[in-house]
Amino acid sequence: METNQEKLSFASDYMRGAHPAVMQALVETNMEKTGGYGLDPYCHEAAVRIRAAMKSPTAEVMFLTGGTQTNAVAIEGLLDDYQGVVCAATGHINTHEAGAIEAAGHKVLPIPHRNGKISAKKLREYLSDFSEDETHFHMVMPGLVYISQPTEYGTLYSLKDLKAIRKVCNEFGIRLYLDGARLAYALACSKNDVTLKDIADLCDAFYIGGTKCGALFGEALVTPNPDEIPHLFTRVKRQGALLAKGRVLGVQFSTLFTDDLYETIGLPAVREADRIRAALKEKGYELCFDSPTNQIFFVMENEKLKEFGAKVEYSFWEKYDESHTVIRLATDWAATAEETDQLIALL
Amino acid sequence: METNQEKLSFASDYMRGAHPAVMQALVETNMEKTGGYGLDPYCHEAAVRIRAAMKSPTAEVMFLTGGTQTNAVAIEGLLDDYQGVVCAATGHINTHEAGAIEAAGHKVLPIPHRNGKISAKKLREYLSDFSEDETHFHMVMPGLVYISQPTEYGTLYSLKDLKAIRKVCNEFGIRLYLDGARLAYALACSKNDVTLKDIADLCDAFYIGGTKCGALFGEALVTPNPDEIPHLFTRVKRQGALLAKGRVLGVQFSTLFTDDLYETIGLPAVREADRIRAALKEKGYELCFDSPTNQIFFVMENEKLKEFGAKVEYSFWEKYDESHTVIRLATDWAATAEETDQLIALL
Amino acid sequence: METNQEKLSFASDYMRGAHPAVMQALVETNMEKTGGYGLDPYCHEAAVRIRAAMKSPTAEVMFLTGGTQTNAVAIEGLLDDYQGVVCAATGHINTHEAGAIEAAGHKVLPIPHRNGKISAKKLREYLSDFSEDETHFHMVMPGLVYISQPTEYGTLYSLKDLKAIRKVCNEFGIRLYLDGARLAYALACSKNDVTLKDIADLCDAFYIGGTKCGALFGEALVTPNPDEIPHLFTRVKRQGALLAKGRVLGVQFSTLFTDDLYETIGLPAVREADRIRAALKEKGYELCFDSPTNQIFFVMENEKLKEFGAKVEYSFWEKYDESHTVIRLATDWAATAEETDQLIALL
Amino acid sequence: METNQEKLSFASDYMRGAHPAVMQALVETNMEKTGGYGLDPYCHEAAVRIRAAMKSPTAEVMFLTGGTQTNAVAIEGLLDDYQGVVCAATGHINTHEAGAIEAAGHKVLPIPHRNGKISAKKLREYLSDFSEDETHFHMVMPGLVYISQPTEYGTLYSLKDLKAIRKVCNEFGIRLYLDGARLAYALACSKNDVTLKDIADLCDAFYIGGTKCGALFGEALVTPNPDEIPHLFTRVKRQGALLAKGRVLGVQFSTLFTDDLYETIGLPAVREADRIRAALKEKGYELCFDSPTNQIFFVMENEKLKEFGAKVEYSFWEKYDESHTVIRLATDWAATAEETDQLIALL
Repeated sequence: METNQEKLSFASDYMRGAHPAVMQALVETNMEKTGGYGLDPYCHEAAVRIRAAMKSPTAEVMFLTGGTQTNAVAIEGLLDDYQGVVCAATGHINTHEAGAIEAAGHKVLPIPHRNGKISAKKLREYLSDFSEDETHFHMVMPGLVYISQPTEYGTLYSLKDLKAIRKVCNEFGIRLYLDGARLAYALACSKNDVTLKDIADLCDAFYIGGTKCGALFGEALVTPNPDEIPHLFTRVKRQGALLAKGRVLGVQFSTLFTDDLYETIGLPAVREADRIRAALKEKGYELCFDSPTNQIFFVMENEKLKEFGAKVEYSFWEKYDESHTVIRLATDWAATAEETDQLIALL
Repeated sequence: METNQEKLSFASDYMRGAHPAVMQALVETNMEKTGGYGLDPYCHEAAVRIRAAMKSPTAEVMFLTGGTQTNAVAIEGLLDDYQGVVCAATGHINTHEAGAIEAAGHKVLPIPHRNGKISAKKLREYLSDFSEDETHFHMVMPGLVYISQPTEYGTLYSLKDLKAIRKVCNEFGIRLYLDGARLAYALACSKNDVTLKDIADLCDAFYIGGTKCGALFGEALVTPNPDEIPHLFTRVKRQGALLAKGRVLGVQFSTLFTDDLYETIGLPAVREADRIRAALKEKGYELCFDSPTNQIFFVMENEKLKEFGAKVEYSFWEKYDESHTVIRLATDWAATAEETDQLIALL
Repeated sequence: METNQEKLSFASDYMRGAHPAVMQALVETNMEKTGGYGLDPYCHEAAVRIRAAMKSPTAEVMFLTGGTQTNAVAIEGLLDDYQGVVCAATGHINTHEAGAIEAAGHKVLPIPHRNGKISAKKLREYLSDFSEDETHFHMVMPGLVYISQPTEYGTLYSLKDLKAIRKVCNEFGIRLYLDGARLAYALACSKNDVTLKDIADLCDAFYIGGTKCGALFGEALVTPNPDEIPHLFTRVKRQGALLAKGRVLGVQFSTLFTDDLYETIGLPAVREADRIRAALKEKGYELCFDSPTNQIFFVMENEKLKEFGAKVEYSFWEKYDESHTVIRLATDWAATAEETDQLIALL
Repeated sequence: METNQEKLSFASDYMRGAHPAVMQALVETNMEKTGGYGLDPYCHEAAVRIRAAMKSPTAEVMFLTGGTQTNAVAIEGLLDDYQGVVCAATGHINTHEAGAIEAAGHKVLPIPHRNGKISAKKLREYLSDFSEDETHFHMVMPGLVYISQPTEYGTLYSLKDLKAIRKVCNEFGIRLYLDGARLAYALACSKNDVTLKDIADLCDAFYIGGTKCGALFGEALVTPNPDEIPHLFTRVKRQGALLAKGRVLGVQFSTLFTDDLYETIGLPAVREADRIRAALKEKGYELCFDSPTNQIFFVMENEKLKEFGAKVEYSFWEKYDESHTVIRLATDWAATAEETDQLIALL
């Protein structure tokens, strides 16, 4: 994933710095002195704005520096020692977080998925089988469901999907956590019908991704009912996740939640991704996973890929067959029609 | 530690943002696209410059976001499962990191200190007693010594001190790790005779603090011999400590290690701290711990403290007696003579 | 799995106490005073005998109290922090050890199996895919392969199987561990061609099961090359697995390894299991997994099962379809032809 | 601590096997088939008898195999992730359990002791200081107090002591756990005024030691209010502490709690220890710690110790000065006047 300024880059959505408004706010506040560890006016202001955007007035909002870290803190906070977390086999915590959940002593319990999504039906089957197994007290008890929105495959849960999953969680007395690393790209998508308020209403905890959505870095962990994770501050510190200059995160999220910036920041990314998908279809490429967000997955013939890769940075996804590969392109909040045009010309 | 712009603030050295040169570099590179996770040209450049500053050409340099996190990654990497880490009872890992070392399964083994420093003599006694105890295989085996430079009390190890500690480590076959959260303030101190090169020569791992020393945030973990901690990248990821936009750290440290900025950035802090100490002595205050760096510890009468605290932000350190308190003032890289004058007028 | 003396019991192989010779040795040595923690003459003697039986004169032999505990100690000892353990999806550590491996911070990495066995081919595919994945340093690195002999399905690895798996481990520089909870029943099986010496030659560590194989309780963890797990004593203590009266285990294993008792103790179990399998086939039941050892898996119609279950204790294995169930019967070292006759009469 | 049958052995109280009644019960039940994992009639019966002895009719009683293991399971069960356990600096969990508590992620928080005992006063000071420290949310929060009865120094808490400690726990909302590894020797002591019922009334969890008190091995973990540690069975399994043939523990504890055996089993040990202490005083030895139970601590001149050690097995405790050593002798449930006479003759 090394980047070369000579090439077009569609490798991922964290290749640039911060949205200009975010960077400007950091510059403007730079020489102020404020308190540390998130106990400053900017973190306070950011939390107020996020609570307003979610219409969740008593939620706790805590700012952390990255997604794996945030998942680790939240999931350890939501689980009891002997419990595990259920997720799609493709869930980021199951595949690309270097065992951070297991490092905290918890088993990840993968279940089947479709395009990166789990269904209420499969979840119910899994939880029923567990409860009915005569030896289930020798097994890791599912205590939490992890989902991501958008998923690792760029797909979206509908409001109906989420409500059905929540219902199953309630039936079995387990919790629901949502990883929103790319949440802005869901919110910017015309096919999306799930609002921030819906997420706050349906999840026990979730995070609003900053790193991939316009911040220099940072994620906002939200617990609509703060009692769900008591002593969160100390937990964050214990994970090594508490930034001394916490206000650096507060300044960024305060800006992202001013004038609906977060809800709209993903629009250029989705618009350009749609154009790329349309061009791919037109040129006869096979699209995968039916992602409507800022990630585009498709099949390219290996010979063509060599040529393409010399000019465009992309992500290898998986081998398709001996002579074809699934690759991923990603657009970001700073996507331009010009870059898209250049890319399409190379397809 | 809340901060109020109306007050003078000497609460700590992480109350402002970044050194202007660091912030400028972040602004200038903001819209570039680079690879993620520290695999970018800026992280590469920063590592090259740090290796040059240490004259340690094969060292591994990894950028993390905070001190507790860096300690956790390094100490877990240096210890085997059944080993613990020896430190001064006042060591940051023993007191103010919320159990992050224990969270990774390792006992912190405190030994007596003097002004925050351990001595080679006390260390040898401890390690000898351990080895000679008939039941020592039922105990946590010391595998590493943790020290901080400057210490939590602002004091400094001399080169002679460090060499003596290293000698004891060698005798007992254990490792040495140095926490350099405030290292720039040691390097800027006229009483200091320990260079970056000395530290790289004597320690198995250490970190060069950025957060308190001019960076917006970030620390540089150095392993002079990279084999000491294999697969460091994956370990950092597992801790949730790997920044997706790693280049944000590379840009900062590359700037800090240009034109000797890091070695000189602490000069204003130490200069103003010296002035404050001189004024305190002159006014008859009792100084504590004999810190020559940017932290100033002294005793104030409680009634006076109320008045003082209304105008100056400080850190409570500990109760001295029923009517007196030990407090800490800290200066930083942006300290000015003007602020010092205002403070002295209030003493 | 509650047991009722009125019923025939084929629920498992740990329903009785110890082999009479083992119990007699415990009685005879009961009032002696010996040193603790396995540092006694009986543990020494048992280790000498086990080393002789394995023809592995420098192996370390450590006695623990149960299988999950032994797996946890061995696997943590063999893995570095950031590594995981590969096993069949049906591996005991992946299903019925309540997350003990994850509790120590390690991910279990399940791969496909056939009748509870993994193949060298599937293992090589998995390890190749891992190494070739561009993002593998964000993933849990496989550091060890876990297999069980006999497997959880009663099946056996042949010597050829084991050598092929070892070869793949060598290719990828990872270790091999064997769970021998029921090892005596493999050794007693005419179809088995894997000796204790073979296991010691091919595995980095393994355990010889006592609990299910004639001991009152206890397992013998063997590391043919003791350097593979340094400081094992302290590791065992740290896990809470060190028995103060370690000699209780030494006495048992010393007896089990006198006059080839361990190698022959499973003969009655396998003989009677073979008779049961023959009877099942004759009566038209569908056998599952083709186990040649002391576990018998077969399909029973649910109505019949109600009647059968009123008279015989068995283990539920899994649902076969809406009207059938897979059940398991197990024989043990004290199996008698009389009990088998009674059982067959009820089929 | 190796033992030689030629020598008198006063090295510890776990050098012999089981009380004859316990061994007889194991022999008598040996060939019965029962359910596994503690779900058998003997474990049920033992729990009923223990509940009756404690007059705590709804307590949960779980049988484990050793003390370190039991402490690890109980303490992890009673603490939340970010909490630590307060104990005397001499507490077994702080010194001789190889970091088992830290292995589960929890810091041990040592406070000053006197003869192995903590006082309500010191405990209150510690907890008050913690609560008042401005930075306490960066520190490990005390969640539990660990005490042992008798202590590691053979001393006893009085009922008044325990009630005072409980009161402080209640004030600060933290729990109380008691390690009863040698509880029978407290119960057998004329100076003791703390009953099993008192312990059940005052502690959130505790264990009744078997290994050192007449069992072949095993401890009974009691939670007077089972809700204090939910899903204890699975927790025990996860620790690798669940014995497949759990009934082996049930049989032993059922015997120990028949006809007040447990309450009286320590009488010979205390009687003979008293005689040894009287003889030591008479001969002018300095006794240490004022232990009234089965452990005897005293000072011996090093030259004398060489001679003494050639004939008697003892435990080294600590260096007293250059020419003297503190040693420990321990008697057990099978102590005889004859052995004591032989020992006294050698003093």
